[in-house]
Amino acid sequence: TFSRGIQTVTLIPGDGIGPEISSAVMKIFEAAKAPIQWEERNVTAIKGPGGRWMIPPEAKESMDKNKIGLKGPLKTPIAAGHPSMNLLLRKTFDLYANVRPCVSIEGYKTPYTDVDLVTIRENTEGEYSGIEHVIVDGVVQSIKLITEDASRRIAEYAFEYARNNQRASVTAVHKANIMRMSDGLFLRKCREVAENFKDVKFTEMYLDTVCLNMVQDPSQFDVLVMPNLYGDILSDLCAGLIGGLGVTPSGNIGANGVAIFESVHGTAPDIAGKDLANPTALLLSAVMMLRHMGLHGHAKKIETACFDTIREKKVLTKDLGGNSKCSEFTADICQRVQDMD
Amino acid sequence: TFSRGIQTVTLIPGDGIGPEISSAVMKIFEAAKAPIQWEERNVTAIKGPGGRWMIPPEAKESMDKNKIGLKGPLKTPIAAGHPSMNLLLRKTFDLYANVRPCVSIEGYKTPYTDVDLVTIRENTEGEYSGIEHVIVDGVVQSIKLITEDASRRIAEYAFEYARNNQRASVTAVHKANIMRMSDGLFLRKCREVAENFKDVKFTEMYLDTVCLNMVQDPSQFDVLVMPNLYGDILSDLCAGLIGGLGVTPSGNIGANGVAIFESVHGTAPDIAGKDLANPTALLLSAVMMLRHMGLHGHAKKIETACFDTIREKKVLTKDLGGNSKCSEFTADICQRVQDMD
Ligand SMILES: CC(C)[C@H](C(=O)O)[C@@H](O)C(=O)O
Ligand SMILES: CC(C)[C@H](C(=O)O)[C@@H](O)C(=O)O
Repeated sequence: TFSRGIQTVTLIPGDGIGPEISSAVMKIFEAAKAPIQWEERNVTAIKGPGGRWMIPPEAKESMDKNKIGLKGPLKTPIAAGHPSMNLLLRKTFDLYANVRPCVSIEGYKTPYTDVDLVTIRENTEGEYSGIEHVIVDGVVQSIKLITEDASRRIAEYAFEYARNNQRASVTAVHKANIMRMSDGLFLRKCREVAENFKDVKFTEMYLDTVCLNMVQDPSQFDVLVMPNLYGDILSDLCAGLIGGLGVTPSGNIGANGVAIFESVHGTAPDIAGKDLANPTALLLSAVMMLRHMGLHGHAKKIETACFDTIREKKVLTKDLGGNSKCSEFTADICQRVQDMD
Repeated sequence: TFSRGIQTVTLIPGDGIGPEISSAVMKIFEAAKAPIQWEERNVTAIKGPGGRWMIPPEAKESMDKNKIGLKGPLKTPIAAGHPSMNLLLRKTFDLYANVRPCVSIEGYKTPYTDVDLVTIRENTEGEYSGIEHVIVDGVVQSIKLITEDASRRIAEYAFEYARNNQRASVTAVHKANIMRMSDGLFLRKCREVAENFKDVKFTEMYLDTVCLNMVQDPSQFDVLVMPNLYGDILSDLCAGLIGGLGVTPSGNIGANGVAIFESVHGTAPDIAGKDLANPTALLLSAVMMLRHMGLHGHAKKIETACFDTIREKKVLTKDLGGNSKCSEFTADICQRVQDMD
């Protein structure tokens, strides 16, 4: 059903370079005749009734209706007490899976050439429970919360992702040798779910071993699934392997098709408004979004155009090693997209 | 006082390839005329009175007397319920700082050439508290414990290490944006201690950002200090950058000069007893030990010989890319050490 007619997507341009890179994505989508219309919303948290921080109602309603969002970088916290927008969005829409495909980009040089993996991070609990206490003066505890339900849910998501994306294996990343009960529970759920996906190979590995092996030979990894904090670490580490947050897409997935795709880099206030920003991360996130919506043809076309532009090295933004403006980089991708017709 | 006369060191050869690489180190120390005599002990945990696992008394007494130990790999747990020997040793001797210098080795190719950093890991608390509960069926919590005392102690160790080793900066690695109270306390102590070390630059960075920056450009890092789990991860990641656990030394430091130096790789049972093992990690750990004991001349001599052997690529063990036996590699280093006289 997703692939019929025009779909509406909630667009959260964000702060700093957010509006520029969002408009770049819109231009490229137009050139590619992607059947998407945008509903622009601001999500920066406001104080709701009772003093609780919340997403503005117009943004919440738009997401509830459209189910799919595309989001640029947000500067947060904007004031003392203001919550992290990343955390608030995950919570508001129960976006329980953070998905980051990391694939080496031809022509963009890093120490690694053969990265092709996906990190799948549990996004709702673990070390992010927010429960902390002072026990006595000078002694503090933070509580890591692991539940059977959230562990099963993320494990199922990972295996389904692997199956649907022709991925051969899923590796559960853990420290169950140390956190026997919490990581132990997470691992047990992964093992149980693995039983239902005999077509996908299942392995388990300690987090420290994954980090060591990752920097020595990332090509050995495929889909990786893990609790919240480990995902925070590994997803950034893997982004570093392929060139950083400027070229790494990200998707936050909830139940019933709800999802927000986002660039995970910062707002880059120093270059904001100067037509210098690199829209690649947001564009590749939008490509993930198209795939999520079943629009594989449009996704492929845009992705190919973007990678072609980068590979040819003629029209690149500064951070990619070139001298071109954001608008020129965008126009080059648009041209390639149109030439494919 | 350390540099006068012959010092006795407790030697824990360990399992698998442990005895071979230990005897390689002893040969090289002899060739270098290092003023060390060895007291060999087995540390594998036994069940003490009351059923508690403990280090055998002969090993405990030897360490209590000599204060300095050198340890090969141990296979653990050796049976269900048997504790991790690493954890038990840290606990028994209150070895609160794990120190791992990671320096690129000339001639041993990895994607990075200019790594020169030291990870300093808090070794006694944090996520390794061992306190876990089932709250209700399917809901588990693990407690991360951070104390003022342990945080101050490790911060002081890191700054003193930096000062004594001509290091320019210390970076505190944390997630105080998420674990505001626990990592917040750790970070506060680092900041306070930094005030007393104005000659050392202090910076702070999120763990995820460190991982991302580390794989993009490790040369930007110098001394890094962090809570237990983050150290577990980062120390292995950094070992990966310079060639893995086979070439990375490690030291566990306690109060009043007590310390155990160790290779952190496994026991490699598949090649044990075949004269194929690579003694580099244990040898470089022994070099750290010599420096800890104030024997800088002997340390430099052995280290130089080891790096020369690796750089010349003529006599290398298999894992280093050669065809030589452990004994041949060892003899080559011994020869170089003797030639320096
Ligand atoms: C900004 C911060 C709350 C966040 C996290 O720690 O999850 C970020 O690092 C991320 O990965 O989205
Ligand atoms: C074996 C295990 C208990 C240990 C740890 O997690 O600390 C190991 O990874 C290490 O770094 O020494």
